[in-house]
Amino acid sequence: MSETRRKWLYQVLEKSHNSTFGYVINISLMVLIFLNVVSIVAASEQSIHDKYAVFFRWMDLFALVVFTIEYFMRIWVSIERESKDERRPIMTRLRYMITPMALVDLLAILPSYLLFLGHDFLILRALRLIRVFKLTRYSRSMELLTTVFKQEAETILSAIFVLMILIVISASGIHIVEGKIQPEEFGSIPRALWWATVTLTTVGYGDVVPVTGIGRALGILIVITGVGMAALPAGILAAGFTSEVTRRREHFKTALMVWVEDGT
Amino acid sequence: MSETRRKWLYQVLEKSHNSTFGYVINISLMVLIFLNVVSIVAASEQSIHDKYAVFFRWMDLFALVVFTIEYFMRIWVSIERESKDERRPIMTRLRYMITPMALVDLLAILPSYLLFLGHDFLILRALRLIRVFKLTRYSRSMELLTTVFKQEAETILSAIFVLMILIVISASGIHIVEGKIQPEEFGSIPRALWWATVTLTTVGYGDVVPVTGIGRALGILIVITGVGMAALPAGILAAGFTSEVTRRREHFKTALMVWVEDGT
Amino acid sequence: MSETRRKWLYQVLEKSHNSTFGYVINISLMVLIFLNVVSIVAASEQSIHDKYAVFFRWMDLFALVVFTIEYFMRIWVSIERESKDERRPIMTRLRYMITPMALVDLLAILPSYLLFLGHDFLILRALRLIRVFKLTRYSRSMELLTTVFKQEAETILSAIFVLMILIVISASGIHIVEGKIQPEEFGSIPRALWWATVTLTTVGYGDVVPVTGIGRALGILIVITGVGMAALPAGILAAGFTSEVTRRREHFKTALMVWVEDGT
Amino acid sequence: MSETRRKWLYQVLEKSHNSTFGYVINISLMVLIFLNVVSIVAASEQSIHDKYAVFFRWMDLFALVVFTIEYFMRIWVSIERESKDERRPIMTRLRYMITPMALVDLLAILPSYLLFLGHDFLILRALRLIRVFKLTRYSRSMELLTTVFKQEAETILSAIFVLMILIVISASGIHIVEGKIQPEEFGSIPRALWWATVTLTTVGYGDVVPVTGIGRALGILIVITGVGMAALPAGILAAGFTSEVTRRREHFKTALMVWVEDGT
Repeated sequence: MSETRRKWLYQVLEKSHNSTFGYVINISLMVLIFLNVVSIVAASEQSIHDKYAVFFRWMDLFALVVFTIEYFMRIWVSIERESKDERRPIMTRLRYMITPMALVDLLAILPSYLLFLGHDFLILRALRLIRVFKLTRYSRSMELLTTVFKQEAETILSAIFVLMILIVISASGIHIVEGKIQPEEFGSIPRALWWATVTLTTVGYGDVVPVTGIGRALGILIVITGVGMAALPAGILAAGFTSEVTRRREHFKTALMVWVEDGT
Repeated sequence: MSETRRKWLYQVLEKSHNSTFGYVINISLMVLIFLNVVSIVAASEQSIHDKYAVFFRWMDLFALVVFTIEYFMRIWVSIERESKDERRPIMTRLRYMITPMALVDLLAILPSYLLFLGHDFLILRALRLIRVFKLTRYSRSMELLTTVFKQEAETILSAIFVLMILIVISASGIHIVEGKIQPEEFGSIPRALWWATVTLTTVGYGDVVPVTGIGRALGILIVITGVGMAALPAGILAAGFTSEVTRRREHFKTALMVWVEDGT
Repeated sequence: MSETRRKWLYQVLEKSHNSTFGYVINISLMVLIFLNVVSIVAASEQSIHDKYAVFFRWMDLFALVVFTIEYFMRIWVSIERESKDERRPIMTRLRYMITPMALVDLLAILPSYLLFLGHDFLILRALRLIRVFKLTRYSRSMELLTTVFKQEAETILSAIFVLMILIVISASGIHIVEGKIQPEEFGSIPRALWWATVTLTTVGYGDVVPVTGIGRALGILIVITGVGMAALPAGILAAGFTSEVTRRREHFKTALMVWVEDGT
Repeated sequence: MSETRRKWLYQVLEKSHNSTFGYVINISLMVLIFLNVVSIVAASEQSIHDKYAVFFRWMDLFALVVFTIEYFMRIWVSIERESKDERRPIMTRLRYMITPMALVDLLAILPSYLLFLGHDFLILRALRLIRVFKLTRYSRSMELLTTVFKQEAETILSAIFVLMILIVISASGIHIVEGKIQPEEFGSIPRALWWATVTLTTVGYGDVVPVTGIGRALGILIVITGVGMAALPAGILAAGFTSEVTRRREHFKTALMVWVEDGT
């Protein structure tokens, strides 16, 4: 009997699109995550925190209880995922516990426990925001984005790596040219990295700028040649994204055609 | 006879590419919308408003009359769109009235009526600018853009959602690192959201910047990893746009080929 | 005999890839345009101008003479382009004179003539820079870029138009929210256009920024939703560019295959 | 015997994916390059340099010895690359020495030798950072990026060239409009180039901004029409990248299908 209950709970939690109850549970979890994240963000502002301190405390306690129950339930039902190795359920559960989503679920509750144990650090409060990543479970296009991220990971890392090389070279260049004039900002390559990064990514705060003619000339050279690199990861992602969508559509079309032809 | 007149008016207003008169009417409406929007923008500058107060008043009155007549005419002729349910014209018209374009037409005239009734609020004056959206009716590539927007809406929302997660995480990070040093700007996560948004979208005003070494190091990390996300929606839109154009061209080509083959 | 000379000159000027002499002439013209543009830019700096005044004067005179001769020669040989209407060469030449490239050639020399006639205005000096567009004649990928620009012109204009609507709406929003607080910058919609444009295009100078909480909240909303629009024209261009290149390659491949099959 | 040793060394250095030892050697070289680059960057900060001066000296000496041995070894084994012209090994080696990667290897060690000879210039210290380019040897997607760079080089250069034309025209425009008001920044076209570049690439430091109404109007015009150009190179790169990946996949698929069909 416990097994049918576990199967039912698995359906509710992981295959929510099959049952109305599962749908309601998942929407409720989404709303709770969202409200909890908003309340964590709002509570970090002292004046808001003082006003609604009780609400924030209860909100966090409630969310913690729900997310803890959810975490252990997901571990419990995880063996429904693969029915082959029924004899060693502990191994299956351990294997589930080290999947990225299960780790996010765990990291989302740990900081709150440490907080309740009295370790009130700023960083622990902020770490509760990891809960926001729990939301990625509920969106199909989020899953698509993640797939494309993984597919293009190597290329994107290469593009970011090229960007980092450009930043180091640019920082080194401005250090040579204006190191003596603005020692505080360009007096060493690590100092110049701030300007180089802010410039090559086109953020351009303007808190640090070259002031000499040759420094500006170098800046023009750096900006014109390098400006394309910062947009490259987005371009690769977008392109990979489109080709994945096309691939899926074609796969679907082929499957449909095979099915139609078989029917004749 | 009223019916033939209605049919004729429907052709003029909605199928303007079929008749010269319809073409003239639509161009005139476009010019009026454009002039009206420019005059609303210009009139918000006090010195210009004082100089041409009379002109602006009459311009707005004239536009209001024309757009009101246009709105009711479009409702009147809307039953020509679908001839199936001739017996219940009111339902057809109500259904037309809740289409996006009809709502834009309504929202474009409402603020002016409230203004003429004496409710002179800044926000009412500005709301008249909704008229600018009436222009989208007259452009084919605008229609193409809207189609692609709808097709890619879910993905773009996902990309924007990922961007928002990154903003919250970044704001939280800078709040931990520089919250004590710049309490006015980074003293809470909501305050730090401004810097995080301005940075990750590469706007980079420079009114708020990290000043410590570790703050700048975090800034470099955030900018390099996150900078691609802001450009992602545009990339997805552009890619979706191209594939839609290709699809249309191929659809046209296939239709042409079928027609040619049938001809043989 | 004049006709063979004209044909030869046509080959030299317009089909330069066919003869070594044409190649040398065109490279020389390119170098002259480049040097002339650099000298016009440099001469606008007073200290440089005073030092090399004589050089700049002669350089400009020399370039003017060459470009004038080139202009009239191109008109003279333009009738070689199409040999159908040999009887009315004046019409053919007039038709050539209103092509974009011929107009650029004309506009490139006119300001210098006005300058030599004594009308020394800053704007006339700057207008000589139109010569830089003469360079577009000599590059194949420039021609490719121009083709794609024309193909995608309507879509790009639509994207720019949507961007302009967003700018007007954003300016209107910030005018309502911070118009009273920063009257100098947001006191009217035309004034607020500067901030809205600088923000939505992600330039972000930071000379004008919202300072209130609600102003910043509006800024965050505007930036996140609108930031993709500014990159859209580039995305459309890049996508159109790639599909044009693919189309050309396939056209070439098909032509090759037809040729190979015919050969069998 | 020397030949078999050379062949073995060639396998280790250039075909590292074939042997475990080659793999270990190449990973070690990568780590050394990385550590060396980090130490060069860190050492440029005076306070860090003073603290670990001995470490930095020995690190650089060690890296120099290793990279020198590596350089000469690669030259020695380079004749294994092509076995056709065995009789003139010097020519083969000279031909290898002028390949880009060999030149990078040479330029990566030269500055250190000059430094050890007592020529302690800032620029020599920075030039050692060329070592970072040695890392490109070890990444497959880096090789892919380089291939696409080469394929699209002409188009990207055209896009950069168009961007430069826009910068010159914009600089010229702002010089005419605000040259008298901000002579220090817009008093000549070369001075105005800084603002024009920073604006059109959307960096937007804000250290130089137009202040008059007409100057801002010109700025709006420049930004809206030109803002797409800066992102174009990245778009072209990304598109070229995707089509190259698709091409490779299809090539692989075709090769597979041919192989499968031959097998039947």
